[in-house]
Formats: sequence, C-alpha cells, structure tokens
Amino acid sequence: MSESTSELTLQAGELDAADELSKLRERFVLDDAVYLDGNSLGALPANVPGAVADVVHRQWGELRIRSWDESGWWTAPERIGDRIAPLVGAAPGQIVVGDSTSVNVFKAVVAAVRLAEEDGEGGEGRDEILVDATTFPTDGYIAESAARMTGRTLRPVTPAEVPDALSSRTAAVLLNHVDYRTGRLHDLPGLTAAIHEAGAYAVWDLCHSAGALPVGLDAHGVDLAVGCTYKYLNGGPGSPAYLYVRRDLQPRFDSPLPGWNSHVEPFGMSPAYEPVAGARRGRVGTPDILSMLALEAALEVWDGVSIESVRAKSLALTDFFLQCVTSYVPEGCVESLTPTPHTERGSQVALRCDNAGEVMKHLITEGVIGDFRHPDVLRFGFTPLYVGFGDVERAALVLAQTLESLD
Amino acid sequence: MSESTSELTLQAGELDAADELSKLRERFVLDDAVYLDGNSLGALPANVPGAVADVVHRQWGELRIRSWDESGWWTAPERIGDRIAPLVGAAPGQIVVGDSTSVNVFKAVVAAVRLAEEDGEGGEGRDEILVDATTFPTDGYIAESAARMTGRTLRPVTPAEVPDALSSRTAAVLLNHVDYRTGRLHDLPGLTAAIHEAGAYAVWDLCHSAGALPVGLDAHGVDLAVGCTYKYLNGGPGSPAYLYVRRDLQPRFDSPLPGWNSHVEPFGMSPAYEPVAGARRGRVGTPDILSMLALEAALEVWDGVSIESVRAKSLALTDFFLQCVTSYVPEGCVESLTPTPHTERGSQVALRCDNAGEVMKHLITEGVIGDFRHPDVLRFGFTPLYVGFGDVERAALVLAQTLESLD
Repeated sequence: MSESTSELTLQAGELDAADELSKLRERFVLDDAVYLDGNSLGALPANVPGAVADVVHRQWGELRIRSWDESGWWTAPERIGDRIAPLVGAAPGQIVVGDSTSVNVFKAVVAAVRLAEEDGEGGEGRDEILVDATTFPTDGYIAESAARMTGRTLRPVTPAEVPDALSSRTAAVLLNHVDYRTGRLHDLPGLTAAIHEAGAYAVWDLCHSAGALPVGLDAHGVDLAVGCTYKYLNGGPGSPAYLYVRRDLQPRFDSPLPGWNSHVEPFGMSPAYEPVAGARRGRVGTPDILSMLALEAALEVWDGVSIESVRAKSLALTDFFLQCVTSYVPEGCVESLTPTPHTERGSQVALRCDNAGEVMKHLITEGVIGDFRHPDVLRFGFTPLYVGFGDVERAALVLAQTLESLD
Repeated sequence: MSESTSELTLQAGELDAADELSKLRERFVLDDAVYLDGNSLGALPANVPGAVADVVHRQWGELRIRSWDESGWWTAPERIGDRIAPLVGAAPGQIVVGDSTSVNVFKAVVAAVRLAEEDGEGGEGRDEILVDATTFPTDGYIAESAARMTGRTLRPVTPAEVPDALSSRTAAVLLNHVDYRTGRLHDLPGLTAAIHEAGAYAVWDLCHSAGALPVGLDAHGVDLAVGCTYKYLNGGPGSPAYLYVRRDLQPRFDSPLPGWNSHVEPFGMSPAYEPVAGARRGRVGTPDILSMLALEAALEVWDGVSIESVRAKSLALTDFFLQCVTSYVPEGCVESLTPTPHTERGSQVALRCDNAGEVMKHLITEGVIGDFRHPDVLRFGFTPLYVGFGDVERAALVLAQTLESLD
C-alpha cells in the first residue's frame, strides 16, 4: 500500500466536503450500502414513488381514458424525449421515448441503411453494415437481423478498426459510446466524422454514456442514436429506451416498425400509412405509461444539474477509486481494463481478477454492490449524482479485504 | 318505446340479482359512472396500487438489482404469459409478455412468412401475405413493413373473403378475432382451418377478444397470436402485449427481433446469437418491469373466474343493451353495426349515428363513458367483470335522452 488507510479516508472526507454535487444524494432513496451498480440499474429517485402512485390512483383509477389527453399520456414519448435531450446535447424535437433499446437499435440501423440507399447510385452499392465487435451482444444480434432483412452484410470490427474498415461499401456503422465491459469511452466526434467522410451513417448506442458524460449529439452531427434510461438516468427496471433522429434526417426517416402512433393522424384510422413529421415518427405502438411516467419523474433529479459538472465528478471518482485500489490491493491481484486517459474513460472501472464471480458475491454481502461480467470482470459503476468519495474509498478497502480473505 | 322505463329497470335489477359475477366488481376501483370503455382501457383493479407500490419501494428501492432474481423480474415475461394462457385457451409455455402489440405483430408476421418459406419448395413460391382489410390500422401498417422486408406482397381482404383469397401463393394471414370498430366476432376455428388447408400460417390479433370470450388457441391449432393487455385484461395504460407461438412451431420460430433476452445464455455475452427454446424465444430486450408487474397483479382479478361464465354474461349484457336501446331510442336515430347472432358478436356494441362525436361528448358529461370512432360510430364495451345490467339500462336511457336533447 502506497498510502495508508487513514490518509485516504482523510482525503475522501476532503473531496466529499468540496463536492458541489454531494447534496444530490438526498434526491435518492439509498441505504448504507455502497451502490456501484447504477450502470446496471440506477437507484430509486425519492420523488418517483409519489409520482407513480398518482399515475395509478388518480390518472388511471379516476380519470381512466381521459388521461390520454388530460394527464398528457399521449404526448409523453416526445415530452420525455425533450427532457433527455439536453443531457445528450440534443435540441428539442429529436428524441422520442419508447420500446426497448434492442427495438430502437433495429429501427435505427434499418433506417440508416435506407438513408444510404436513398442517397442514390452510390448508396445502392453500399452493401455493408459495420458493427462494434466488442458491443453489448444485443446490438450485434439486432444488427445482424437488420442486415439480413435489408440484404446487407454485417461486418464486426473494433471501434479502432472502423476508420480503415470504412469504404464506399459502408451503409451504416453501429457503435457504442462506452464499452459495457471495460468502460472504455470511444471517440464519438472523430468516428462520426470518419463515417460521414465515407458517405455512411453513424448510429450510436449511448446506454453507458447518457447521464454520465456529455455526448454532444447535435454538435458532432450524429445521425441516429439510441439508449436505455435505467442506468445513469435512473428510470427504473426496464424503463423505456429512446431514439434520436437528427432533425434534418427526420423527413427521410423510414421506420421498419411504422405503428399507428407514428401516423400523421393516428385516430383517423386510415388503412394507408402516412408518417407524421418530427420525432414522433420514431414511435410504434401504445406507450407503456406506468414505466414511462416513472422515468419522467426520475428525470427531475437533473433539475439544475449540468452534465459537465457530473462528468468532472465522475472522472474524479474513478481516478480516486483507481488510486485507492492501487494503495490498498496488493500488486498483481487485479488489473484494470479501464483506460487511464480521461478521454478514453466512461464512468465505470472494470477490474479483471481471478475468481471474479466469487469475489463479487463476497463484496455484495459486505455492502459493496458492483456486478460481475463473464468470465473474469468486476464492474463498478460510479453515478456522480449519489456516489461520494467516501463510498469509493470504502469500496476499495472492502475489495482489498475480500481478496485477502479469499486468498 | 316498446317497453317502459320501469319495466326495464325492474328487469335490470332481476338480472343483476341473478348474476353470479356481480361480486367481482368489488375487485375494481370504480365510481358512479357507467364505464363502457373497458375495451379501450380497463378499469383499475383494486389490488394493483399496493402491488405497484411494493415494486417501486421495496423491489426497486431496497433490493435494486437483486430483484432481477429475488423478485422474479427476469422470468416475469414467461410467468405472466402463463397467467394469460388459460384465458385464451393455451397450455403453459407458449406465451411471452413484452413489447407493444405492433412490435409483436411484426415478430409474428415475419416469423410466419419464414415458416412458410422453410416448408420447402412450395413455401418459396408463397409470395403473398393476406391481411384483414377492416383491421385496426396498425396491424396493416406493420404487415406492410413485414411484407416489404421479406419480399412479399401484402393483399388486404375482408375476413369473409379470406377463404376465396387463399391459394398456394399465400404465406401468412393476419386477422383480428373481433373487429375493433363494429365488434364483429370472426370465425377463428373455421378461418384457421381454411388457412391451414391452403398450407399457410394463421396469425390472430386477440386485442378485442382476450378476456371477453373463449379463444381456444390450442384447440383450434392457431399458429401465432398477439394481443394487448390493457383492454379486457385491465393491465393499465400501455401495459405490455403478448405473443403466442404454438409449441410445435417454437423450434422453428425465427424472430426478426432477436434481442439478448431471447438468447439461450443471455448473460454469457456471446457475440454469436443462439436462440433459447420455448416461449422465451419471443422476448427481445429488457422487460419494462413496472408496467409488467402491474399487469401481473391485475390478472389476479381472474382468480376463480371462468372465461365461459364471462362470455355468457357478456352476451347477456350486449343483448340487454340492444333491447334497451330499441325500447328507449326512437327508431332511425341509431343503427347497430354489431351483428345480432351471438356467434358473430364480441363484447361491444357499435352504434352508428349522426353527430356521433358530439353525442359521445355529451354522454361522457352525463357519466356514461364509451368512445367515439371516426367518422360516425359510438362504441360501447362491456366488461363482464365490472359492468352490471343496471349500468346497461342507464346507459341506454342516457343515450336516448342525449339524442333527444341534441335533436
């Protein structure tokens, strides 16, 4: 150990005292555990139970169908999309909430291929979709289906290989902003520019970045993006995902799932499909109101919080965690898979170690909640809204003690 | 008027007194209104608020990620599917809950086309999908997309025209069990048999029949079926839909949305997709737990209730409503679009009348809640679990008074 426990405890206390975001923890329901699994399921925001009770008792129980208008149920997907927008650097009117991430990946990849196809002669020869080979698997499975159903070939490459893999054959590229396993942050601006340079369309999966760091969708000209809302956005288990379609592409967005909610006149009951303009074109069927309005309430915890301040704290937390691990854990016991440079790091730290499954079980019984990713990874997510520096120091200490006890 | 108000009021009282299901009304949160819009959004079951509060406070707030195992979140889609199964005549293991009806229509129609294709030489020539021309529009829009993405032609025909339209070119047929507008019940056994005779696959949309009448999926050999859960199943606004895949077809069910939840080893994080066996193969992404567990609680109102007794009461309710309308409403003011024979009637009555939008607004202010369907239809849904004969008589009386007052 390069620094003593008391030194790091002291340092943690000083960092917490100087932390301008520390009061945000009060906006959540938390216990004494150190919850470092917000990148799997965000903690419960304190205002959500009351909001959900109102949806159930009053909106559904009393107003019933009147709530589609009077409680704003019908417009919830776009309204909540606009609430997410500033967190990912999007102007209003470009994000719609609904369906799962997987379903939105399907919409986005198929739509991107169709955009490339529509671009004319050059587009017709674009027979390849590139997909992040290190992706969370569902994106790859869905991209494979999108390729099969649009007559394209799917080619898995690492994000680093994308620039060389791009060619006049490339129709679309599906990438993760942050790698779910290692926590590596990919170069969204640079890769998007390279994809555009090749005449292809960029689809980004923001599951592990939205709510943890600035994304800058509009600033970097991203074409389409998807993301879940139950990690750093704290929307609750399986809360609906979202789809971003850049404004100038919306008139050409051609959904493979053209449900009645995306019709220009959904209650006209016309047998002919005519898509609405704007973000609503990304909708499909009836929105799942309970999950959706729980998410809407959860997003209130962001009131007055800038994503830049969250990012600064996130980097300080992961830096401090790595510092504490280095100090507390005997050398050689764990290896960080998470890049050291800030420009390449998301909001999590992934440590490879022997017997990781057993280690994580033990950590959880000791009140340090992270998760295990097959085959040998301990994954710790740092949600700056409710994780403090004292939590980080304690997690590293319990990790060191656990490794010692299981040795 | 052929019968006086007092006669029909007396008759309603007698019918309510003899109604074995009348006590079920206590299982719902209702007020003094006559709620005849359960075919749009079912009323709130009384046990749902407590169940949802537990999901939010304890399962999410306290157990957090542990709930994926400990609170049975992960297995909810199949578990709740098995709870719906007896209501639609399906043995366990064939229904999975999740996504919207539209998304499930896409899965089912594409899968049906692929089944026909796989059937061999004959299947390759099957280039046509038949769709109910009178369908709720989203089914038609989605079927059009499924046809486009599988290289088939979509041909809209009325259910009555299906037998003549079937040929060796037919791959799949998408039909509604009950017409959303007129309440007409289609001949599921006969049409399914005709479709099979032609070597094609039958996909049924049960949105307006499940929970209102026996469906008999297994008994009639239906191939695939979908349905929503927020009408007669009272799951709440936008509660997740379901997909039925007949057991013997499951090994060949080839989903166009092969998300990670349908992988044989979802947490193995393998880049290669390998579908699980059984109903879970119909899953896609992370299930929306809040909406899903509200639905699970809502299904408890069916404890000890047979769908046959519900059907008997449903027919008695719609018969009595038509009788009261005939007695109270001056001849020529309204015309029933709903078939008279029981074998052709769902659980709703659709009345065509002039100025229907205005009439329905007035009915609602008078506490009779139905809905208006463009351009000239008053739609009244009869949920036997909570609608009584006195409600029915009052609705007809208020309708007569409204038509008189607006005349």
